Amino acid sequence: MKKHIAVVSGDGIGPDIVREALKVLFAVGAKFGHTFTTSSYLAGGAALDAVGIPLPEETLDGCRNSDSVLLGAVGGPKWDTLASNLRPEKALLGLRGGLGLFCNLRPAILYKQLSDACPLKAEIIGEGLDLMVVRELTGGIYFGERGRTDDAAFDTMAYTVGEIERIVRKAFEIAQKRSKRLCSVDKANILNTSQLWREVVKRVQGDYPDVEVSHLYVDNAAMQLVRNPRQFDVIVTENMFGDILSDEASQITGSIGMLPSASLREDSYGMYEPIHGSAPDIAGKDLANPIATILSVAMMLRYSFGLQAEADCIESAVSKVLDNGYRTADIHTPGMKKIGTNDMGSLIAQSL
Amino acid sequence: MKKHIAVVSGDGIGPDIVREALKVLFAVGAKFGHTFTTSSYLAGGAALDAVGIPLPEETLDGCRNSDSVLLGAVGGPKWDTLASNLRPEKALLGLRGGLGLFCNLRPAILYKQLSDACPLKAEIIGEGLDLMVVRELTGGIYFGERGRTDDAAFDTMAYTVGEIERIVRKAFEIAQKRSKRLCSVDKANILNTSQLWREVVKRVQGDYPDVEVSHLYVDNAAMQLVRNPRQFDVIVTENMFGDILSDEASQITGSIGMLPSASLREDSYGMYEPIHGSAPDIAGKDLANPIATILSVAMMLRYSFGLQAEADCIESAVSKVLDNGYRTADIHTPGMKKIGTNDMGSLIAQSL
Ligand SMILES: [Mg+2]
Ligand SMILES: [Mg+2]
Repeated sequence: MKKHIAVVSGDGIGPDIVREALKVLFAVGAKFGHTFTTSSYLAGGAALDAVGIPLPEETLDGCRNSDSVLLGAVGGPKWDTLASNLRPEKALLGLRGGLGLFCNLRPAILYKQLSDACPLKAEIIGEGLDLMVVRELTGGIYFGERGRTDDAAFDTMAYTVGEIERIVRKAFEIAQKRSKRLCSVDKANILNTSQLWREVVKRVQGDYPDVEVSHLYVDNAAMQLVRNPRQFDVIVTENMFGDILSDEASQITGSIGMLPSASLREDSYGMYEPIHGSAPDIAGKDLANPIATILSVAMMLRYSFGLQAEADCIESAVSKVLDNGYRTADIHTPGMKKIGTNDMGSLIAQSL
Repeated sequence: MKKHIAVVSGDGIGPDIVREALKVLFAVGAKFGHTFTTSSYLAGGAALDAVGIPLPEETLDGCRNSDSVLLGAVGGPKWDTLASNLRPEKALLGLRGGLGLFCNLRPAILYKQLSDACPLKAEIIGEGLDLMVVRELTGGIYFGERGRTDDAAFDTMAYTVGEIERIVRKAFEIAQKRSKRLCSVDKANILNTSQLWREVVKRVQGDYPDVEVSHLYVDNAAMQLVRNPRQFDVIVTENMFGDILSDEASQITGSIGMLPSASLREDSYGMYEPIHGSAPDIAGKDLANPIATILSVAMMLRYSFGLQAEADCIESAVSKVLDNGYRTADIHTPGMKKIGTNDMGSLIAQSL
């Protein structure tokens, strides 16, 4: 297989972690006989410094003309005082919108080797956690009409049946490949958009009779994630609820530095990135944990390129390196071997 | 001091728990030389059964003409099939709206005697938890303009400066009486209402120079509540964010049956109620835990009547009874003495 990947390293530790992820990508390509090529593009603060805007047209075009996108992280205090249309984070919104990436996959996995980091009691997490939040990414209140006067403001949460149906179908398909349980989260006792959401889920459900569906209000879901996260397998929800719940679910694993994400289009095209930030304070110091970005590469292979064995191979290599006691500083505990960004990437590449 | 309190017992265990809370109210009145009088009013299913609507005008008038309101719980499966404008829960919205109760106080307290029930690890909760979520209750997306067509829907999150300022000032005043730390939660990197919210917090902050202010995005706040809830003292946020975060914070204590709440007007008037539901399955069986309602009375004394010592006295009495090993069924653990609703109320009243 030949695939061309747009690489957007971004700011802070972005270049550090993307470098290691590409090391693993090329190694897995060599092992399995695939040819992966890359082109690099600017976005975020790096683009602001170079050309004065957070998302140059060239970047968007380059991403569009690639088979998928690998992104590091954007943003940092250096650009925090800029006007809101010039904030580095605008690059993320622009990429998601410009590339039509409406389906955000946020796995929350607790590795048994790192269960000490989990904030929940052992009897709650049991054998570990492995749940997937499917978040609608291009609709809802983050994209609706908004306005300001001197003494008032409004934002609009809006959804069409089409916008809901395409994300709900993605979630059903993912549930079919996992434990066949899907929990839809809304606030249908109050919001019209949530009532529409629930109607669509109930109709679409007929096409996936093997999937068991449940419904939860968002405030209750925020409680249940703490009380008993193991009750969940796949959660599907609208943009803002998904933002809140996917972050909460991530925190429940205790290891944000380990978690990848995917943002998918209707076809198999996607953008892959770690969920953590750009951590400018440790940029370039060989301190960042590249595992989330490496696992993002595994998701790319699985969801965009259909390369299951290759994705499994990367995930096993990560687990092997953890089993052998290697840790970057963020996940280090007494008795483990502390290593840097570069060594972590190399060890995982060698363990493929 | 003389105060007249409107009592709305409601449905299910409502009468059981309110009876015990009044026992404690009258006992604390006798001890400190105050005269508390009460009038009872119907709301929820009880009102539906008696007069066919969930919130009779007489109830609203009676509440308006009292110094504060004590509410038990409303709702139950018996009335779940009624049209949405006849649901018992409409009584709560009607009381909040009709009484102008825009400020919801949701303490999340973990009693060290009940720390086994907390889902978080011991090293995270340390000596216990005691935080306060101040939630805006009558604005935002739950009350904004909404609409539906066959294939689309919208809801509007709207706020005025006035609506924001009055809740933010309440939160600053509460922070001044606690640890002088206030965390404002919004999504100001995206939402116009949140940007307005943050502007108001930053301006109003000048009037409370002794309070240290921090700002968190709502998704990050949902994470931080799990990662390290002890970093928070008072959190202030808009209606929907407050709905989600206050429920998450409650769950973190592990003991929903212990948590009171207050809903305040601009002056000192307020409505006080436990956060738990009406639990119709155990109604009238001397099984309900009255502590959340008893602690709601303590909040009434503190926030509406300014009776600090009296409120402290009730809270100490609750702690003393827990120290002595008495538990209702919902919080019972091996080795503790299981008692009923009535005995729990009496023991707390005797421990004042
Ligand atoms: Mg987020
Ligand atoms: Mg709620």
